[in-house]
Amino acid sequence: MRVGILTSGGDCPGLNAVIRAAVLTGMVHHGLEFVGIRDGYRGLVEGDVRVLNRSSVRGTSRIGGTILGTSRTNPYEGPNGGAANVAKTLERLGIDAVMAIGGEGTLAAANRLADDGLPVVGVPKTIDNDLDATDYTFGFDTAVQIATEAGDRLRTTGDSHMRCMVLEVMGRHVGWIALHTGIATGAHVTLIPEQPRSIEWICEYVQSVYDRRRAPLVVVSEGFKLEGMDEEYSRKGLDAYNRPRLGGIGEVLAPMIEERTGIESRSTVLGHIQRGGAPSGADRVLATRFGLAAIDAITAKAWGTMVSLRGTEIVRVPMSDALGDLKRVPDHRYREAELLFG
Amino acid sequence: MRVGILTSGGDCPGLNAVIRAAVLTGMVHHGLEFVGIRDGYRGLVEGDVRVLNRSSVRGTSRIGGTILGTSRTNPYEGPNGGAANVAKTLERLGIDAVMAIGGEGTLAAANRLADDGLPVVGVPKTIDNDLDATDYTFGFDTAVQIATEAGDRLRTTGDSHMRCMVLEVMGRHVGWIALHTGIATGAHVTLIPEQPRSIEWICEYVQSVYDRRRAPLVVVSEGFKLEGMDEEYSRKGLDAYNRPRLGGIGEVLAPMIEERTGIESRSTVLGHIQRGGAPSGADRVLATRFGLAAIDAITAKAWGTMVSLRGTEIVRVPMSDALGDLKRVPDHRYREAELLFG
Amino acid sequence: MRVGILTSGGDCPGLNAVIRAAVLTGMVHHGLEFVGIRDGYRGLVEGDVRVLNRSSVRGTSRIGGTILGTSRTNPYEGPNGGAANVAKTLERLGIDAVMAIGGEGTLAAANRLADDGLPVVGVPKTIDNDLDATDYTFGFDTAVQIATEAGDRLRTTGDSHMRCMVLEVMGRHVGWIALHTGIATGAHVTLIPEQPRSIEWICEYVQSVYDRRRAPLVVVSEGFKLEGMDEEYSRKGLDAYNRPRLGGIGEVLAPMIEERTGIESRSTVLGHIQRGGAPSGADRVLATRFGLAAIDAITAKAWGTMVSLRGTEIVRVPMSDALGDLKRVPDHRYREAELLFG
Amino acid sequence: MRVGILTSGGDCPGLNAVIRAAVLTGMVHHGLEFVGIRDGYRGLVEGDVRVLNRSSVRGTSRIGGTILGTSRTNPYEGPNGGAANVAKTLERLGIDAVMAIGGEGTLAAANRLADDGLPVVGVPKTIDNDLDATDYTFGFDTAVQIATEAGDRLRTTGDSHMRCMVLEVMGRHVGWIALHTGIATGAHVTLIPEQPRSIEWICEYVQSVYDRRRAPLVVVSEGFKLEGMDEEYSRKGLDAYNRPRLGGIGEVLAPMIEERTGIESRSTVLGHIQRGGAPSGADRVLATRFGLAAIDAITAKAWGTMVSLRGTEIVRVPMSDALGDLKRVPDHRYREAELLFG
Repeated sequence: MRVGILTSGGDCPGLNAVIRAAVLTGMVHHGLEFVGIRDGYRGLVEGDVRVLNRSSVRGTSRIGGTILGTSRTNPYEGPNGGAANVAKTLERLGIDAVMAIGGEGTLAAANRLADDGLPVVGVPKTIDNDLDATDYTFGFDTAVQIATEAGDRLRTTGDSHMRCMVLEVMGRHVGWIALHTGIATGAHVTLIPEQPRSIEWICEYVQSVYDRRRAPLVVVSEGFKLEGMDEEYSRKGLDAYNRPRLGGIGEVLAPMIEERTGIESRSTVLGHIQRGGAPSGADRVLATRFGLAAIDAITAKAWGTMVSLRGTEIVRVPMSDALGDLKRVPDHRYREAELLFG
Repeated sequence: MRVGILTSGGDCPGLNAVIRAAVLTGMVHHGLEFVGIRDGYRGLVEGDVRVLNRSSVRGTSRIGGTILGTSRTNPYEGPNGGAANVAKTLERLGIDAVMAIGGEGTLAAANRLADDGLPVVGVPKTIDNDLDATDYTFGFDTAVQIATEAGDRLRTTGDSHMRCMVLEVMGRHVGWIALHTGIATGAHVTLIPEQPRSIEWICEYVQSVYDRRRAPLVVVSEGFKLEGMDEEYSRKGLDAYNRPRLGGIGEVLAPMIEERTGIESRSTVLGHIQRGGAPSGADRVLATRFGLAAIDAITAKAWGTMVSLRGTEIVRVPMSDALGDLKRVPDHRYREAELLFG
Repeated sequence: MRVGILTSGGDCPGLNAVIRAAVLTGMVHHGLEFVGIRDGYRGLVEGDVRVLNRSSVRGTSRIGGTILGTSRTNPYEGPNGGAANVAKTLERLGIDAVMAIGGEGTLAAANRLADDGLPVVGVPKTIDNDLDATDYTFGFDTAVQIATEAGDRLRTTGDSHMRCMVLEVMGRHVGWIALHTGIATGAHVTLIPEQPRSIEWICEYVQSVYDRRRAPLVVVSEGFKLEGMDEEYSRKGLDAYNRPRLGGIGEVLAPMIEERTGIESRSTVLGHIQRGGAPSGADRVLATRFGLAAIDAITAKAWGTMVSLRGTEIVRVPMSDALGDLKRVPDHRYREAELLFG
Repeated sequence: MRVGILTSGGDCPGLNAVIRAAVLTGMVHHGLEFVGIRDGYRGLVEGDVRVLNRSSVRGTSRIGGTILGTSRTNPYEGPNGGAANVAKTLERLGIDAVMAIGGEGTLAAANRLADDGLPVVGVPKTIDNDLDATDYTFGFDTAVQIATEAGDRLRTTGDSHMRCMVLEVMGRHVGWIALHTGIATGAHVTLIPEQPRSIEWICEYVQSVYDRRRAPLVVVSEGFKLEGMDEEYSRKGLDAYNRPRLGGIGEVLAPMIEERTGIESRSTVLGHIQRGGAPSGADRVLATRFGLAAIDAITAKAWGTMVSLRGTEIVRVPMSDALGDLKRVPDHRYREAELLFG
């Protein structure tokens, strides 16, 4: 039995640990063969693969990114796309099962391929923690850790200059990274997409912290929207020439806070360093367990399912479970953080 | 209402984050007053406390250890011990509720005090992850992360010299830290107290790795026992003069492996660095949530209960839930790791 | 004898280690008393000080920022400024010597005060490594380390997506942080203020790396200027509406590279996290040695001098040595890096 | 021209950065070919080599250890040893120059080979910083950083339990790692081989710190010797049965301190984690510069020389400069540290 593995969508620390665990256990304990499908669904559609063996995956669990490359190709598009074409490609390459590792888009395509009769299982990946079908996925913990260390650093420089520091973290649609980073760094305000707030509301906290002679720290998701402002403004803000500009929300907030409170403010946009580099120990464990469980799903021919963390256990659920709404930060979790604001 | 907080037993990254969250939310949102009880139950029995306010806990969530000190005193021992004496002390100090943060011993005493009518709630703490009443507690994630980074470092020096590296991590009775560290570092063998193994079994893996021209990495819990050897020998081994010695199991294993396989072997005993220093982001989040929930338990007068993580939520359970058997590594979790041995 | 210590200008990891070493050795071995002057020269001019003792500095060598606060006030400006007024303030506060820790501006003012007869010694501080009078100062090593770790992270995500990653680091006038970060991360091009280059020159390297199927990494100082473009354009670039915008040079370069090469490009601006947080071990050692040597300078009444690193030794030099030209990256050091470009 | 590179002796973070820089610049800018000599002089004597090209060294500057392997073989020993045999081997393999990277033993052999007419240049490597011919070498900075982070961690757990923590770091003959780690962590006593002290002297500091209600931190080199005790005892100490035991000096000191002062004491022996893992940014820069300069030495046919750091510059010196006395910690540097003891 020959298994093809692909990683699709944005990269995430832990992808290689999934691949490594799957390949090692599959080869040693189930006699499977493996190929890596290059650059996600692009490689699947174009039949671009390479053999994976023990030495391909050696030492990779502690390396960020994906050794297989990734893309945002949709396997139902293009001249070679569609289930029928993919089926032919798989047959030609002798691939009997596909392990698709990715987020909602990846899993939606994987689920459709499975519905169309192809032998596909899924592994959920989302650095933003926005998939509802699993308690957590790998990558999120690493991102929070990196953002936490950055926030710790910002606090000491903020304190020295009595500045308001604004830290923008990932999270276009959901606020999980900001929520956990805000709690971990002791942020005075945390702003997430699920909870629009006005600039006045924000400045009130900032001012009260400053009045206690503390340097305010604001953690904000990239997808946070300022209440009472049209979305484009909120996203773009105004530059020094009073024209809409293209910076992130952190770069918008800092000058607005400074203008309204008179408190010197600086923003830092963490960006891609949140998704690169060595995965945390916890993420390597979770990714490894997902890889092992995905091999079980393959040997059980449980097409259309994906692996999932529930409490402390790895279970198997329909891929469709991951395809409804995003997992947003619920109100009670935001209120937890809010208890410590100011 | 005045709340006394104590930390008891071995220290653990995250203790200060519990204290900080409890004090901040209790003061700001519930009008509570706080005192810190010094050195665990010693301070409770002796009435040794100090006022805790906002500035006492400022910036402490990212600092390891406990700002309150800790000890292993049993509140039922000594001339001032026992529930009746403690009740008098609490009355004298005007303390209306006690938050006891600690492991099994601490919680057992806290539960007994609650049974004896005292207003006590618990917060579970175990760096070893050996408490059954909660999915995880704070400190464990940090310990795994530190051990994982150490293991990563050992691998490169092992590879350079083609040595077998033995990494001894904490875990006197349970193997959780070793299990997760072994998976995260890609250890070739992981040895835990729950699964005694013979030296021959271990050496077989070590040799097979070496034969593939890889430097073997062995991760071992301090409480692992070699099968087929009396316990004292297993614990103490023999020194160069053929007498029992007092080193950890890692220091015992390395020369045994070297003697049997001829492969140069070195051991590293991580020791106390696993429990000190800044908590990981994840541990700060969990500890903060525990602190908030413990204040809820106090305002609800839910004496005799403790906070607990179940899946992604914090719940309240009877403290007695934590007092039965230790949470050992179940067989299926060890088998997961075993799939990747060799 | 009573010593006042001030920190002035941008903060820098290691400031507290200087203060701690000075206070501890001064108190214990020379019977000195200490006050901390708040917020740099602002506190000096306004007479805003607080007593420093052993407990004020306890545990601070590993904490970033400055416990004294900082500002960019010039002691020769304002109604209470000028040497005569400062002399009166010092007399009123009983301060017999001032230790001024800061960069070129700070040391220029300190030197002028010393020339005007005040008892001032200097400690050089520059995170950018732009002071000529010392081999290195504290803070620089930490900044390079943080930027190196960020660059390592960017590489794995760049490799996964085959993107060109642009990392902007500090260095408004000199390229030392970029030079060392570029070497340490194995950047394919490093761009510094001392060496203007054209966008075509940059893209040639980027393209050649991409053609070898590697993801290009570009490290750039914030003060780098694109050759053949007017400075404002170079600094501001054009936004999506073809108007000058205010992003850093990294945010300017990435879209220019993408436009010219067709290679997807992303920028990360590290910003303030480079100057916050725990100092590296090396910076703590250097800062501590500076603090000890500054006390020697004070007890020797060597007013107008500053401490300096020469090779492995700390020496004393005239403060005026630090006030000429900035220490720029010499050509031969840039050529070193250039040997590894592409 | 074909260059063989070997790494010999204990491994050290930065070795791969030397190799990478040499190979890249040598291939691209000088048209050189490269082979890696396996396992130090063993590979030289046995003619065990492999081709090194761009892809062999890709991404290795941030990886610890040595991709070439290492050993402690002496090239003048064994049936194929000696200059004449080695010369034949080099000729047979078409190797025109050898770059030997290592410590005193390695450089002594390299120098002898050069004296015997072989085309050899050296690159100094010593994690202990004990080579006199260079200000610093790579690896030392990383080791100090790792030990500093460990010391930071030990402080918080020490403070929580009011224990004396003893941290043993590397340094069999010289105390540089301990000296810098002690300064960086704010140790209350630092003990180095160059400065024997009595247990009473040590305990006096420990007691005075404890009396101020601080948890004492002792940093000790593995090669420190207790004054007034015969060396074997000092090295081995007594175990719980009053017999000489084999633990490191840290494991000897902790119980002696506890016995004499009554203060609970714990030791941590850092061991091999100090020499493994990713090099610090500073070490990668230094190693890279050494690699570049070594290629210059080779193209200049400067046989018998080695590269060296002097201040901020890389220079070329006779290898014999490294072969006299070890570079010990001078008295004035130890006195610096001593000023902050207690």
